[in-house]
Amino acid sequence: MISIFVTGGTFDKTYDEIAGRLSFDVTHLDEMLQLGRARLPVRVRTLMMVDSLDIGDAERATIVAACVECAESQIVITHGTDTMVETAAAIAAAVQSKTVVLTGAMIPYAFGSSDGLFNLGSALSFVQVLPPGVYVAMNGRHFSWDAVRKNRDTGVFEPADDR
Amino acid sequence: MISIFVTGGTFDKTYDEIAGRLSFDVTHLDEMLQLGRARLPVRVRTLMMVDSLDIGDAERATIVAACVECAESQIVITHGTDTMVETAAAIAAAVQSKTVVLTGAMIPYAFGSSDGLFNLGSALSFVQVLPPGVYVAMNGRHFSWDAVRKNRDTGVFEPADDR
Amino acid sequence: MISIFVTGGTFDKTYDEIAGRLSFDVTHLDEMLQLGRARLPVRVRTLMMVDSLDIGDAERATIVAACVECAESQIVITHGTDTMVETAAAIAAAVQSKTVVLTGAMIPYAFGSSDGLFNLGSALSFVQVLPPGVYVAMNGRHFSWDAVRKNRDTGVFEPADDR
Amino acid sequence: MISIFVTGGTFDKTYDEIAGRLSFDVTHLDEMLQLGRARLPVRVRTLMMVDSLDIGDAERATIVAACVECAESQIVITHGTDTMVETAAAIAAAVQSKTVVLTGAMIPYAFGSSDGLFNLGSALSFVQVLPPGVYVAMNGRHFSWDAVRKNRDTGVFEPADDR
Repeated sequence: MISIFVTGGTFDKTYDEIAGRLSFDVTHLDEMLQLGRARLPVRVRTLMMVDSLDIGDAERATIVAACVECAESQIVITHGTDTMVETAAAIAAAVQSKTVVLTGAMIPYAFGSSDGLFNLGSALSFVQVLPPGVYVAMNGRHFSWDAVRKNRDTGVFEPADDR
Repeated sequence: MISIFVTGGTFDKTYDEIAGRLSFDVTHLDEMLQLGRARLPVRVRTLMMVDSLDIGDAERATIVAACVECAESQIVITHGTDTMVETAAAIAAAVQSKTVVLTGAMIPYAFGSSDGLFNLGSALSFVQVLPPGVYVAMNGRHFSWDAVRKNRDTGVFEPADDR
Repeated sequence: MISIFVTGGTFDKTYDEIAGRLSFDVTHLDEMLQLGRARLPVRVRTLMMVDSLDIGDAERATIVAACVECAESQIVITHGTDTMVETAAAIAAAVQSKTVVLTGAMIPYAFGSSDGLFNLGSALSFVQVLPPGVYVAMNGRHFSWDAVRKNRDTGVFEPADDR
Repeated sequence: MISIFVTGGTFDKTYDEIAGRLSFDVTHLDEMLQLGRARLPVRVRTLMMVDSLDIGDAERATIVAACVECAESQIVITHGTDTMVETAAAIAAAVQSKTVVLTGAMIPYAFGSSDGLFNLGSALSFVQVLPPGVYVAMNGRHFSWDAVRKNRDTGVFEPADDR
């Protein structure tokens, strides 16, 4: 069984047509798993629906606790990209014997041109075969939590030391 | 470097609006890698653009030869689902020291509701971390070539012995 | 009140992922009206779900009868493009005092790149303002039933005498 | 020849994946006309790319001038929905002998679930058959500029006196 924790982020942003701006409603995760015809045993739980920039210590503690407490040893977390690496570090400090993969999207899934479905397929695959540890899966690649950063100019995740 | 071999299949079917039927044009692979914002070093080569049911001995020999001859040790092959397992077996008989992952789609990528992007993200991830061998990646799962079959009633790939 | 008669055609084709070919299921008309946020009083009725090439005398008689018998004086018909003009002529021979607009699509609505939603918006608009008569609405234009043909090389509807 | 003036609005909003917010780039109008397989003689001109709430007197004067000065007597204007009626009124005060149709979208065209393509098909159809005047085309309907308002609770355009 794979545990999937939803935290929001661009991945799950939607367009509020009355207010005329981006917002959060419910997660698209189930719809995406159906679209991918995924036949994995998964348990989806929405921890929060917030922008990555609104994830502070309290939110991070909630995510870490969920990783610690869940029965599953394979965990995928959808998360905004801006602070994904910080959350990964917090999880790594508390979780040793599980495989945790964080992923997200540069474009909301609800947009036609989203990378979300590709990233979800990628994260769910990495989590099944990588050894215990905390990873970021973006751009078709996986990185250990302590060897990655988001390049804010290009939006691409890259090895932490290769600029 | 990952080698991607395109062979056609539902994955790459398109709609010919003049003839009013499904057909093949060029592959959507590059567009899909761009959509997924993939930053993997890949080499894409179209071996053929045919329906899975039109893959016979000659076509299979071409695919096997491409796997044997390419310099890369990580190979993803897009392939129609109906004969994917047969092609996987043919490759397994000839290739030992490489990781080969076959994937496809139940719905053409050009259709809005395709599983193709999810499957591509999945296959590209599995190929980077699985040990040498020949695998099928569908439905978010991976199977060894000799332990999988497509259930033709449900369209789902499942362990070869679990019906 | 506008009467909408569904007859199938490319407009409503879907992809049968088990059989691996195009087929008909239920109409997408209601979903499309919702997507277009249409607030028109409409009555949608599916007369048949067939390929335009399978519309013969019997099917055409059914369509004509539906136009004659319905209470509404504004009628939109979704129809395959190959024989749309023939059906328009059959209706014109039987219906005088109503505005009937036939439309369709070159690409199935279920495909991402369909012209169906554009054509539906167009047909529903023309039917509200054109005087009684039988028309074809395609390519953003409207044509009287006796002054249009489909150019089979380009897929474009054009004045019957301008080649 | 139909003149199409682009002013921005939700219709043309796009997602800036580096900044993580909605913004304007170039118009999607040409892509939409291609998708709709429109074969109308049109001249597309981008007057501005702004949010409807940022359309003030100066912007409105620019739009009115464009309507007055263009050679075409059929004009479609894409415009944000929040101040569409105000702009329609300004045009009506200055333009008498042309048919001007304003339209927009509740959801950006770049989003999968947009009403934009439907509305464009509708506006381009109404402009060809309505008598001279200034109209709003939304929700599959057309309204004279002085008999319509946007219901801000529902996002629906409705007769100005029917609440």
